[in-house]
Amino acid sequence: MPPVHCAEVRRPMKKLLIAALIALPGAVGAADDAELLRQAQSHFRPIPASLPTIHDNVVTREKIDLGRMLYFDPRLSASQLISCNTCHNLSTGGDDNLETTIGHGATKRPRNVPTVYNAVFNAVSYWDWRAAGTTARVKGPIESGIEMTNPPEAVEETLRSIPAYVERFRTAFPGSEPPVTFAKVVQAIEAFETTLVTPNARFDQFLNGKLDALTPVEKTGLHLFMDKGCATCHQGINLGGHAYYPFGVFEKPNAEVLPMRDRARFEVSKTTAEHLFRASPLRNIALTTPYFHSGRVWDLKQAVSIMATSQFGAKLEPSQIEAIVAFLETLTGEPPRIELPFLPPSTDKTPPPH
Amino acid sequence: MPPVHCAEVRRPMKKLLIAALIALPGAVGAADDAELLRQAQSHFRPIPASLPTIHDNVVTREKIDLGRMLYFDPRLSASQLISCNTCHNLSTGGDDNLETTIGHGATKRPRNVPTVYNAVFNAVSYWDWRAAGTTARVKGPIESGIEMTNPPEAVEETLRSIPAYVERFRTAFPGSEPPVTFAKVVQAIEAFETTLVTPNARFDQFLNGKLDALTPVEKTGLHLFMDKGCATCHQGINLGGHAYYPFGVFEKPNAEVLPMRDRARFEVSKTTAEHLFRASPLRNIALTTPYFHSGRVWDLKQAVSIMATSQFGAKLEPSQIEAIVAFLETLTGEPPRIELPFLPPSTDKTPPPH
Repeated sequence: MPPVHCAEVRRPMKKLLIAALIALPGAVGAADDAELLRQAQSHFRPIPASLPTIHDNVVTREKIDLGRMLYFDPRLSASQLISCNTCHNLSTGGDDNLETTIGHGATKRPRNVPTVYNAVFNAVSYWDWRAAGTTARVKGPIESGIEMTNPPEAVEETLRSIPAYVERFRTAFPGSEPPVTFAKVVQAIEAFETTLVTPNARFDQFLNGKLDALTPVEKTGLHLFMDKGCATCHQGINLGGHAYYPFGVFEKPNAEVLPMRDRARFEVSKTTAEHLFRASPLRNIALTTPYFHSGRVWDLKQAVSIMATSQFGAKLEPSQIEAIVAFLETLTGEPPRIELPFLPPSTDKTPPPH
Repeated sequence: MPPVHCAEVRRPMKKLLIAALIALPGAVGAADDAELLRQAQSHFRPIPASLPTIHDNVVTREKIDLGRMLYFDPRLSASQLISCNTCHNLSTGGDDNLETTIGHGATKRPRNVPTVYNAVFNAVSYWDWRAAGTTARVKGPIESGIEMTNPPEAVEETLRSIPAYVERFRTAFPGSEPPVTFAKVVQAIEAFETTLVTPNARFDQFLNGKLDALTPVEKTGLHLFMDKGCATCHQGINLGGHAYYPFGVFEKPNAEVLPMRDRARFEVSKTTAEHLFRASPLRNIALTTPYFHSGRVWDLKQAVSIMATSQFGAKLEPSQIEAIVAFLETLTGEPPRIELPFLPPSTDKTPPPH
């Protein structure tokens, strides 16, 4: 799906506002359930039953296994202390649950870490969409001067110094010379990422036709989510992650939530409006506190309330906020079972940490 | 086994030196193999086939599972970024493979991290034996102001705020109130540690009577290891980890390897000699570069050479060093298969990171 610019999505938002006048929230009967499902299916898609594919990268068991090793290997960072799993912690919802992340030398990064779970379904990466596609998403943190701070040549030198890794690369990329390249590191991690999906959330069961998978309150929340316009930006498999939008359409949130110095997409493009951020993917949102790019909001109810005020100029009733949060909690899926890799040791040719 | 003071071990060392005049290294025949095994069995013990037990803590599946969750949970630290696994990384030999470890706020700690694998067999903990037994070993890093920096009450408050954890504690410690206490946190992690053993190293196979489990060079290395006196301090299941000894009996290593300001055991006791360190456990030593409490030596050959000079005043031949290193490499065992836990999310009652 090509990324959608915010201007193009205003029409569906209006349609939804009209629909809101017809469909009534509250007690929902069997016919209403079927209608709710039909509407939901027009906005959202369930996580597919089979592993996703990636453009230009055939996913094999061998690549996944190698990618898993690399994902957990702190030697991909200059300090040899930070692995992908340090910030995108697979035990804690695929992120670090901190306000903003801590990078090389305990540098505090300016933005909150997005989850790696289901990231394979996102069309755009980063809060400012500085990179599209999986490749850039995997490369970025390794090279970034304030994250893992390791240039591609250094990553290659490290991995080439470890015979067991060279052997693994040969198995995962048979007949390809030289065996270890940064591009292959990225491909292997991409392949592992296809396994980092959390299917079978109760909302997926509902989307797949199980009408009683959601409680009445959760259905009211789903209805409100579409009705109020949240689904205009938070759509697709991940309920977000496909495009960027202005934060503060009707009213800018306070400077703590939206610090003015972080101009988001504008920092990259220099042409768009300021404060355009990627619509956050909402899968497993209950597991990934705190919220927003600034990471300043720890309570999901408060986050929903801020979104309503800033994006629609609407003040939601407490019961409406509770219903939407109840719906959002149905987006928590089943995590994959991951065996911790046991990594081969460094050799006297491995560059030391710095 | 009670800890042994260095003075008590001088006699066996002399015996070994006499034995060295009788037994000759080099080509070893069948009769010599049997004799080598007999000698080895007098110094070392294989990792037992069954999981070890702990004093005052009945190990159950439920405690192990809870301990595994806690081991990987960064919320045990004040920053909520550092878990046990950050420094005692189960993917990289049970340590961090750094010179000295990085603690809270990226503080550089003064000493190298020992491996957690097989730590359950160590009689004493820490380089300076500041604490004996498993309990103190588990408590120390959580409370330490330069490691996880979290007081017991804060750990309890965090875990009590998460209903799924409370439920897990109730299952692991049935009928015990209050369900969550720091003592139980420690007991659960202790229970998990009993699974962090690496049996069936080739040296274990040899100790269990499989005479051809070691190559001739490795057997020469084993012979030299006992013959030169290494086994005097590096004995038992872990070839170390049971007592403390002076570093630099014959000659102090250079100030880089043995910085004078770190007086080791003396810092704790104020009564012993300076520079008494715990004899490092040598299991999986090939996986846990760099070496010594200062972490300044990255090459195992150099480490062996330094030990010979400083502890025995002996200059080993390169072939002797290579043989000893070949033997040490046979101490690499089979790591356990560990499934990464998926941790329950924080709630609005969970204290924020700081």
